[in-house]
Amino acid sequence: MATLKELAELVGGKVIGEPTTDILRVAPVDEAGPGDITFIANPKYLSKLAKTEASAVIVAPDVEAPGVALVVCDNPYLAFAKVLTYLHVRRPDPRGVLPGACVAATASVATDATVHPGCVIGERVSVGPGTILHPGVVLYDDVSVGEDCTLHAGVVVREECRIGNRVIIQPSAVIGADGFGFAPDGSRYFKIPQVGRVEIEDDVEIGAASCIDRAALDVTRIGRGTKIDNLVQIGHNVSIGEDSIIVAQVGIAGSTEIGRHCTFGGQAAIAGHVKIGDNVMIGAKGGVSNSVAPNQVLSGSPVMPHKEWLKASMSFAKLPEIRKDVTRMKRRLEELEMLIKER
Amino acid sequence: MATLKELAELVGGKVIGEPTTDILRVAPVDEAGPGDITFIANPKYLSKLAKTEASAVIVAPDVEAPGVALVVCDNPYLAFAKVLTYLHVRRPDPRGVLPGACVAATASVATDATVHPGCVIGERVSVGPGTILHPGVVLYDDVSVGEDCTLHAGVVVREECRIGNRVIIQPSAVIGADGFGFAPDGSRYFKIPQVGRVEIEDDVEIGAASCIDRAALDVTRIGRGTKIDNLVQIGHNVSIGEDSIIVAQVGIAGSTEIGRHCTFGGQAAIAGHVKIGDNVMIGAKGGVSNSVAPNQVLSGSPVMPHKEWLKASMSFAKLPEIRKDVTRMKRRLEELEMLIKER
Amino acid sequence: MATLKELAELVGGKVIGEPTTDILRVAPVDEAGPGDITFIANPKYLSKLAKTEASAVIVAPDVEAPGVALVVCDNPYLAFAKVLTYLHVRRPDPRGVLPGACVAATASVATDATVHPGCVIGERVSVGPGTILHPGVVLYDDVSVGEDCTLHAGVVVREECRIGNRVIIQPSAVIGADGFGFAPDGSRYFKIPQVGRVEIEDDVEIGAASCIDRAALDVTRIGRGTKIDNLVQIGHNVSIGEDSIIVAQVGIAGSTEIGRHCTFGGQAAIAGHVKIGDNVMIGAKGGVSNSVAPNQVLSGSPVMPHKEWLKASMSFAKLPEIRKDVTRMKRRLEELEMLIKER
Repeated sequence: MATLKELAELVGGKVIGEPTTDILRVAPVDEAGPGDITFIANPKYLSKLAKTEASAVIVAPDVEAPGVALVVCDNPYLAFAKVLTYLHVRRPDPRGVLPGACVAATASVATDATVHPGCVIGERVSVGPGTILHPGVVLYDDVSVGEDCTLHAGVVVREECRIGNRVIIQPSAVIGADGFGFAPDGSRYFKIPQVGRVEIEDDVEIGAASCIDRAALDVTRIGRGTKIDNLVQIGHNVSIGEDSIIVAQVGIAGSTEIGRHCTFGGQAAIAGHVKIGDNVMIGAKGGVSNSVAPNQVLSGSPVMPHKEWLKASMSFAKLPEIRKDVTRMKRRLEELEMLIKER
Repeated sequence: MATLKELAELVGGKVIGEPTTDILRVAPVDEAGPGDITFIANPKYLSKLAKTEASAVIVAPDVEAPGVALVVCDNPYLAFAKVLTYLHVRRPDPRGVLPGACVAATASVATDATVHPGCVIGERVSVGPGTILHPGVVLYDDVSVGEDCTLHAGVVVREECRIGNRVIIQPSAVIGADGFGFAPDGSRYFKIPQVGRVEIEDDVEIGAASCIDRAALDVTRIGRGTKIDNLVQIGHNVSIGEDSIIVAQVGIAGSTEIGRHCTFGGQAAIAGHVKIGDNVMIGAKGGVSNSVAPNQVLSGSPVMPHKEWLKASMSFAKLPEIRKDVTRMKRRLEELEMLIKER
Repeated sequence: MATLKELAELVGGKVIGEPTTDILRVAPVDEAGPGDITFIANPKYLSKLAKTEASAVIVAPDVEAPGVALVVCDNPYLAFAKVLTYLHVRRPDPRGVLPGACVAATASVATDATVHPGCVIGERVSVGPGTILHPGVVLYDDVSVGEDCTLHAGVVVREECRIGNRVIIQPSAVIGADGFGFAPDGSRYFKIPQVGRVEIEDDVEIGAASCIDRAALDVTRIGRGTKIDNLVQIGHNVSIGEDSIIVAQVGIAGSTEIGRHCTFGGQAAIAGHVKIGDNVMIGAKGGVSNSVAPNQVLSGSPVMPHKEWLKASMSFAKLPEIRKDVTRMKRRLEELEMLIKER
């Protein structure tokens, strides 16, 4: 619970209305009632303001709503996220190593970490203070996990991989599986040992069942603040810059270098050994086979500028008609040419 | 084991031949021998009837096969599934909470449920009668699982999610991971807490390593009888109607609403915040970026009516030729125009 | 550690330089220093030879590099893989069944296998000598795993599946989940029990979180030496020949038969019930809906010969322009036709 005044201070906003109003919960604008705070980030939903029964609404500057208590701030969506965190998220008290967890003698687990039953922690592993390992997390030998991380149930981190601070890993993600490398030996394949590691920097989030492969020789790196959705494949030796967004089911092949603040839509695929500049956006299902300069928005497979792709896609459905037109025109042209020749 | 008569009654069919014949197993038509029953659902395989050594064959009405015992029924494929279930599937006897499982004191597990070693069950969880939790299943706090469910090894269900009755979840599926939501904060991203839940209705099946994210504020819902294949991604706040079929590696982005009795082919992708009507079929690899009215068959990316897509795809390979034709025709047109002007 | 002479013998190569030089590690050419061996497989990197500080370099015949110790061999990439294995990979000593593992009374685990904590091994399972089961591996009843296999943490193998020798399975892969089979029953679906199994032959590698479904009635088979990357979906009753390469996020639908020595690029999809010949290459994101004869290189969705696809893709971006050209030319043609008619 918090007063409107407290929440406004939290988000750097201004109260219009009674600052001592108690707020208990965050709710969607259509479902909010007394005690709830809601938000409107998109101007097209402002008409809902008149009808809401919420005790308060977070809005952008210059919104008018007589009779509705407001928290006015520059970025209502961010403010909503902060209020939601403040009111709804409480990190559980640390519980230490619980019975049913299995920790190697040489591992070092901070006293205010929590290790749930079914976790298996290898030799020389270090787990930082405030970190929570949910049931069934497996850390192979020589892994390090920083402070205030949350590794959800079934996460596997293989040997020597390093996880920074405040990293969140959703259930069943796999960090440090062998990269996919084989040397042809006649018609057979000889496994190239993958003796590198993965480094995940601070404030990264990794989605459920996503896989980040260890490098062949050195490091696969996920930059600070980057957020990776579910079922994403990151190949060996890939490096992703800071604050990038990788949506579900994207695949990034080995040795590719991704810049900062990129956004890749769902099911996009990036070839191996290419370089993607900063601030590149790739549309859902985009296929990138070559390097991409910074600050571009691309779609399609192979990718092209997004606007061109939109136009080309619209023409695609007309292709059978275009083809028929071309065939007919060829005949008409020939007739005309004959006719003119004859004269 | 069952007699032909018993099996015919099971499927609402009629025996042609000796009703007391004992049937031990179901086998493919090419491999079936004495004691086996097989089926022919597709008329193009009827020629195999003459050669089969099966003790009986399940067929549609009006099939003639002198000397072969038949079970005649309207839907041979369904009858095959029922016979296979009857002869081959025996639910193991309930075994209670087995040693090596870890159940919180406040959890309630029905006496005739089975909880295998390595399972971890959180506070206030309820597990219904007849339900089987295979090794390594993790149920976070406040989860409820109904009656006669099967959760295979490594399944994770996060806090507060609800699973109905007779739900089957294949190994390593993840129910209730955080949805992928972040509020931009300058060039960084601030995590939007995902405090909603997932509700899975009765008779749903969910494939191996599929991920169904919890809602941001309310509910991600999978409707009764819907079947989801492996490695599927369902984003937060999605709702899927009853009896839909979602094939492997499909991705459905957040807040999208899917109707009843839809079928999405493998690797299809549906954008967020759209609405797909009932009885919509999307072809494999289809990409849907807008809402779709009911009762349509669409393919391509972006999708278009399936038949148009087939034609457009056939023309696509001819595109370089069309392009050359157009270039040549432009030249010929210019020549003709000059010629006519000159005259 | 090894001398240059020993490594040359290992790879069937020839030393140019001092054969007694001690080699400690393998390193990338740019990072290698004294004690390191590196390799150059691609002639375009030969210029790096002059600058490397490595103690030795593995190269192809006819490379000249005065002052640099060389190991000359026909296949430097393969030699690199062998040297890397020799210097960096040491299989841990067998440790037997460790405390915290749960092995059924009727299971048979070879004395020099290793079963880590958190593993659960069902009735009548057999685990061969030299095999390592990392923490949390679950083998259902009647599974057999051969010799010298490595099953990483969280791998699940369901009932009756058979794993050959020297098979490597990366974390969280799922072998033998139910195939996706349902018989329509009015508007609902009736589950077809999946009572077949999976057989994985010798020397196969399977990637993290990949899923190989059990057959409906008989066998899903992965041929000897085939390598499967992460997050791959293999449907029920699929058969894959020997020495094929299946890159990440590929999906192969049920009952499809894949030949030997095929290579499928990332996110490719193969329809069900088709046959793909030997030595077929499918480009990344390729979509195969029909059978494919051997020895072809195909791309696109639907697939076409790779070179045609490259050309068609280049023309695709020009499609709006082509369409405009066609529209304009139609008008000009009409004008010409009128003009000529009038004369």
